[in-house]
Amino acid sequence: MFRRLISARNPIQFGSTIRQVLASKPSNESIHVHGWVKSVRLQKSIAFAMIHDGTTPNGLQVVFRNPMLAKVLTNGASVRLTGILTPSLGPGQDSELLAEDVQVLGVCDPETYPIQKQALTTEYLRDHAHLRARTDVQGAVLRLRDTVMRRLHEFFHNNDFIYVHTPIITSNDAEGAGESFRLASVPSHPGGRGVSTENTEFFNKPSYLTVSSQLHLEAVSNALARVWTLSPCFRAERSQTSRHLAEFWMLEAEWSFVRSIDDLCDVAEASIKHVLRLESPDRDLLRSDIGASWAVMAKPASEVPWARITYTDAIHELQMSGARFEFTPRWGTALQSEHERWLADSFAHGPIFITDYPASIKPFYMRQNDDSKTVACFDLLVPHVGELVGGSLREERVTVLEAAIKQQGLDEEAYRWYTELRKFGGAPHGGYGMGFERLISWIGGVENVRECIPMPRWSGRMLL
Amino acid sequence: MFRRLISARNPIQFGSTIRQVLASKPSNESIHVHGWVKSVRLQKSIAFAMIHDGTTPNGLQVVFRNPMLAKVLTNGASVRLTGILTPSLGPGQDSELLAEDVQVLGVCDPETYPIQKQALTTEYLRDHAHLRARTDVQGAVLRLRDTVMRRLHEFFHNNDFIYVHTPIITSNDAEGAGESFRLASVPSHPGGRGVSTENTEFFNKPSYLTVSSQLHLEAVSNALARVWTLSPCFRAERSQTSRHLAEFWMLEAEWSFVRSIDDLCDVAEASIKHVLRLESPDRDLLRSDIGASWAVMAKPASEVPWARITYTDAIHELQMSGARFEFTPRWGTALQSEHERWLADSFAHGPIFITDYPASIKPFYMRQNDDSKTVACFDLLVPHVGELVGGSLREERVTVLEAAIKQQGLDEEAYRWYTELRKFGGAPHGGYGMGFERLISWIGGVENVRECIPMPRWSGRMLL
Repeated sequence: MFRRLISARNPIQFGSTIRQVLASKPSNESIHVHGWVKSVRLQKSIAFAMIHDGTTPNGLQVVFRNPMLAKVLTNGASVRLTGILTPSLGPGQDSELLAEDVQVLGVCDPETYPIQKQALTTEYLRDHAHLRARTDVQGAVLRLRDTVMRRLHEFFHNNDFIYVHTPIITSNDAEGAGESFRLASVPSHPGGRGVSTENTEFFNKPSYLTVSSQLHLEAVSNALARVWTLSPCFRAERSQTSRHLAEFWMLEAEWSFVRSIDDLCDVAEASIKHVLRLESPDRDLLRSDIGASWAVMAKPASEVPWARITYTDAIHELQMSGARFEFTPRWGTALQSEHERWLADSFAHGPIFITDYPASIKPFYMRQNDDSKTVACFDLLVPHVGELVGGSLREERVTVLEAAIKQQGLDEEAYRWYTELRKFGGAPHGGYGMGFERLISWIGGVENVRECIPMPRWSGRMLL
Repeated sequence: MFRRLISARNPIQFGSTIRQVLASKPSNESIHVHGWVKSVRLQKSIAFAMIHDGTTPNGLQVVFRNPMLAKVLTNGASVRLTGILTPSLGPGQDSELLAEDVQVLGVCDPETYPIQKQALTTEYLRDHAHLRARTDVQGAVLRLRDTVMRRLHEFFHNNDFIYVHTPIITSNDAEGAGESFRLASVPSHPGGRGVSTENTEFFNKPSYLTVSSQLHLEAVSNALARVWTLSPCFRAERSQTSRHLAEFWMLEAEWSFVRSIDDLCDVAEASIKHVLRLESPDRDLLRSDIGASWAVMAKPASEVPWARITYTDAIHELQMSGARFEFTPRWGTALQSEHERWLADSFAHGPIFITDYPASIKPFYMRQNDDSKTVACFDLLVPHVGELVGGSLREERVTVLEAAIKQQGLDEEAYRWYTELRKFGGAPHGGYGMGFERLISWIGGVENVRECIPMPRWSGRMLL
């Protein structure tokens, strides 16, 4: 009655993945392989099929000495194959499976299957979000996200950063900028008898989806000196660009005992270069899929030091450039996308840090420089993508911080916990945030961030 | 003007963390150390201080041959110390810092500092969420989360699972159970001139915060055969227990080509055992902090195979137990917490899988067993915590699935994408979900999940 499993079940008995099969040595033993049919080629006396299971961009070639066996196969069907792994005679793969038996686990009607072999538009694939991971490109993007994320874990762990799960629901409305999603109030007695129609806030106060984990990370970095997160963030922006999503993932790092903006840039640069040095067949697949210039930019960028220039100097360079801009570059105004593009693409020909922006166009928490006009911050611009990272020293001097909160007309009471961090052993600190989908877009050369996340959400659009 | 950094700045020049200092060999060179003062002991001719920086549960002992140097130190202050690392003569540490210089970076008024040395109640610390990471216990919990998370990454990566960032905002209202947070509609022209009072849905349809990533993972696992996530989940539950949060993190794994419920249990068991085998000074600190029996349960659990029993047999055991229950165990009804506790604590004396529950008390997506009465699912119960994991085979037979959707009165149109997954090469598959805070609670022996997450949210309560 009370059955304990014998330990023979440990280690667990998964079947082999196609990645494992392709990495293994041919032998005379029968093996089982599972996957989905990518293509079938029937000839008179032999048949071939390509089988994928998504664990690698590569498929397993299956050879049917008896072509009748392959007759049941259609594109998209899920199958269980039994056979012997043998060295491949054909080009393109080291080994192939000599099929002895085949079993269709899930049929796929070739007439109605939405993922046909001919090229499908990105718009069509967005409409089929539940199936688009079946395409080579989307599969590669998803695996690349996993690989890049693990490189980031590696970098931060090696440097004693602790990963912190910061909250998604927050009382912070992002300085009332109107770009926060707000939670609806809920009935006080959902489904109860004598239903009350009175609505209340679930948390007894207005609550929002976070636009950044920075303030929360600052609280933790005031006790654990080095922290980071990769967390969902939300912007209720109506803008429809290739660089914006309503729901996206952001890497944020925050650490204490920082001395200068160069310290911050060093860590940002080192963390991204650690990612750029990865070996990834998925990145290679994505780059081979697209036009040349854009995708190749990221790789050599890992070899040279990246340019750094102040905002003030950047404005000067823009004004002297002779380039024609829609918006005239002027000290005290934000850099427009066209300016950012020029600085990265035409001026630096690679990534470039712009530092020390005017205080008037930056948030209250950035540390004031001695000139009282600029703040100790940076944006990292990269070719094609534009702004990839933004960071700053945070104002740790409580009187300067409180003055900035007052001057920007913010609710002092709401930020009391934040100023308190400075009063009780607050340390000089700083950090940065990086849009994860933009990083994937840059590394993979994927034009639109909507293709850089499994299930994209933007204004007017949410499937699944 | 256009200054490129010399590569001498690579590798990056962080100061040393206290973890690194404690792991390094004493030498005669002066080093700098940053951290927060945990305690100060002034004597006539010598002074001592303990300095923490959160990178390890251990502090660095600092010795002041000149006690005047230590006069500026107060508990909680952030400091920069210069000195020489020497072998320690006292017990409790291998090395200590002989201070030559000390600089207070951020003062801390000992009178008003909320984190006093005497024991503080958990309720008090919840009220000071922005500072509670300064306590030994909360620091240990945060580092333990990081360690456990990395063990999970390791396990799943080693087994060819791809990490997928599933969406937080979803159109799925969790079968209308009324426990989903809904997003408020937003003004159609926020902040615009001639403000429109017309409210619209940002996504043109009602949108909710996810209660589980399972359905989305199923979509991806139909292309990448093995996927997992550790993702925020949300329940607008009013219940105030030690095991529930309104916002929590859930590990979910989903994979194709599963044959049986035992396959699923094997992976769940192996993944958790991989975590339990970790070496963690933070776990040891947490366990030393609490009463005995509860905390020690998790460790030996990694050595023996875990019990497995069907729901039907479990009901029988409960009925035969002679134990006094508030709710009579009866086939066809849910197991109550008191039943789950008895099964894990008194019956199995350890973790126990309960499998094959009645279909009538389980969701529509679970795979029907041949008896047509039960479904191929499991719950994993562990001592003290109760339900830690829930999983199932998913119904891959499209006609059976469609019948279940109809029978449970769900919106067939809303689940069309989900049933379509079965029509186009759907594979037999399954998966499980595990509450991350419950896992931390079990491993660390932390009684309430509110202490297992940096910034807890529950009904009526959200700070920061």
